[in-house]
Amino acid sequence: MSSTPEFGKVVVFGVGLIGGSFALGLKAAEQVEEVVGFGRSLSTLTQALNLGIIDRVGANAGQEVADADLVLIATPVGQMSEIMTRIAPYLGSETVVTDGGSTKSDVVAMARSAFGNQLGQFVPAHPIAGAENSGAAAARADLYREKKVVLTPLPENAALTVARVRSAWEWCGAVIHELDAQEHDRIFAAVSHLPHLLSFALVHELALRENRDLLFSYAASGFRDFTRIAASHPEMWRDICLANRVALLGELDCYRAQLDELRDALQRGDGAALEKTFAVARSARRNWDQGLAK
Amino acid sequence: MSSTPEFGKVVVFGVGLIGGSFALGLKAAEQVEEVVGFGRSLSTLTQALNLGIIDRVGANAGQEVADADLVLIATPVGQMSEIMTRIAPYLGSETVVTDGGSTKSDVVAMARSAFGNQLGQFVPAHPIAGAENSGAAAARADLYREKKVVLTPLPENAALTVARVRSAWEWCGAVIHELDAQEHDRIFAAVSHLPHLLSFALVHELALRENRDLLFSYAASGFRDFTRIAASHPEMWRDICLANRVALLGELDCYRAQLDELRDALQRGDGAALEKTFAVARSARRNWDQGLAK
Repeated sequence: MSSTPEFGKVVVFGVGLIGGSFALGLKAAEQVEEVVGFGRSLSTLTQALNLGIIDRVGANAGQEVADADLVLIATPVGQMSEIMTRIAPYLGSETVVTDGGSTKSDVVAMARSAFGNQLGQFVPAHPIAGAENSGAAAARADLYREKKVVLTPLPENAALTVARVRSAWEWCGAVIHELDAQEHDRIFAAVSHLPHLLSFALVHELALRENRDLLFSYAASGFRDFTRIAASHPEMWRDICLANRVALLGELDCYRAQLDELRDALQRGDGAALEKTFAVARSARRNWDQGLAK
Repeated sequence: MSSTPEFGKVVVFGVGLIGGSFALGLKAAEQVEEVVGFGRSLSTLTQALNLGIIDRVGANAGQEVADADLVLIATPVGQMSEIMTRIAPYLGSETVVTDGGSTKSDVVAMARSAFGNQLGQFVPAHPIAGAENSGAAAARADLYREKKVVLTPLPENAALTVARVRSAWEWCGAVIHELDAQEHDRIFAAVSHLPHLLSFALVHELALRENRDLLFSYAASGFRDFTRIAASHPEMWRDICLANRVALLGELDCYRAQLDELRDALQRGDGAALEKTFAVARSARRNWDQGLAK
């Protein structure tokens, strides 16, 4: 463990759950010498400092990225473009950049615009380890352990650059997958973005009712699980929805068509159609769960 | 603990999760002398016998209920009418009957039709302790501990009859609430039946796609929680949907209107509207969760 860490200076923009856990993961693996943090909120940065997530609060982003080995942009996606534009002119020639955004096509487009002919230094990443908790206090060194991190490498990336970013996430314990950015966004519209939207919608609809307290008082474990993701970060999910708008609209329309079918079956009292739908769902859900357990 | 149990013979129709846990709860409290089980499947009954859930498999329902202290009907709601009709002519004058159905207006209507002038002996109940697992093997003595059981007493019930049924569920550890049957059904359409339908719909829609394996391979913890209830019992949920059809259609339409609003916001790229909806949902969800923790 006294060997030289793989990374000297790591700069993290956004020291919340995603960025903080990345820093803690590298530190736990003893693979980083110094973590410098940037963020919008001084109180969060102070908290990250006190929790040992970062070693220093950065003052000048350009200066810090000039000699950094690795930069992680782990803010909500809506802030990434501004950060990329700010750091691009100062990026060291050996510095590699990755991100923690839940959407990838938009992040790639931002990077293409901001980094210009340094684009090859940026390797987009999506760590699949969200939680409904956010903020530095929620960060933990083992957040990524045995979790998927999807890289969506660019044609401009050298193999060694991708390998370096891969290595950083692997030191955090992650299992690396690679996808094309567009395919990534279509997949996550279906299995992540849509369920979040549906869960937010249910809780919002009930929360505006006059008898909400009565309703919530009888909500039980099924409701709790279904709505856990409705406690997710509103700004982050606004950005995800906007960034992946086209794919998400497509998924939402497929889902609405499915709901219309179920509504028709319910309206006409078609128990056989309902039971068949439920049985197919149960079987798929159980197979998936058992696959996970393997 | 050597005092006389409150109940001598208890007859349970349906020895799965709900009926089995009721029997085990009364046994753990030493408040029952003998549990007799009925069911459609001999293998389930044999399993219940081997697990100590029931003491005997019943052969003649009429004969068994004639001298029973308490009868629990814990089958899917679709089978209850037939059971009620079968036992009504033989019901002992001191025997009280309760049920474990998730809908109440329809069960009350069945009971009214089956029990006639013995209707007062039937006290409808809904234990709020479902799980996506079902069957005798899933039954446990503590399933109802600190869980709500909603009674929807009838005008025909004597206070002592209600007290006796209340007592049985309380011995299982439940916290008893009382609601009107119609109000019960409206509440549970919103906080339980609709979320189940929505979760089944999502998994079914994805399960029919050609690329389902790819999609499911990237599904993570948010998906897991959102879809846990999509592994629920298809026949049971068919019956619940049909039984509470009118209220559920109403809830489904409210929800579809909410989805339409979100779709419009997404279509026009209205981040402020999305964020506000998500923030209201998050706040309501967190308040509810904190209320539970108290």
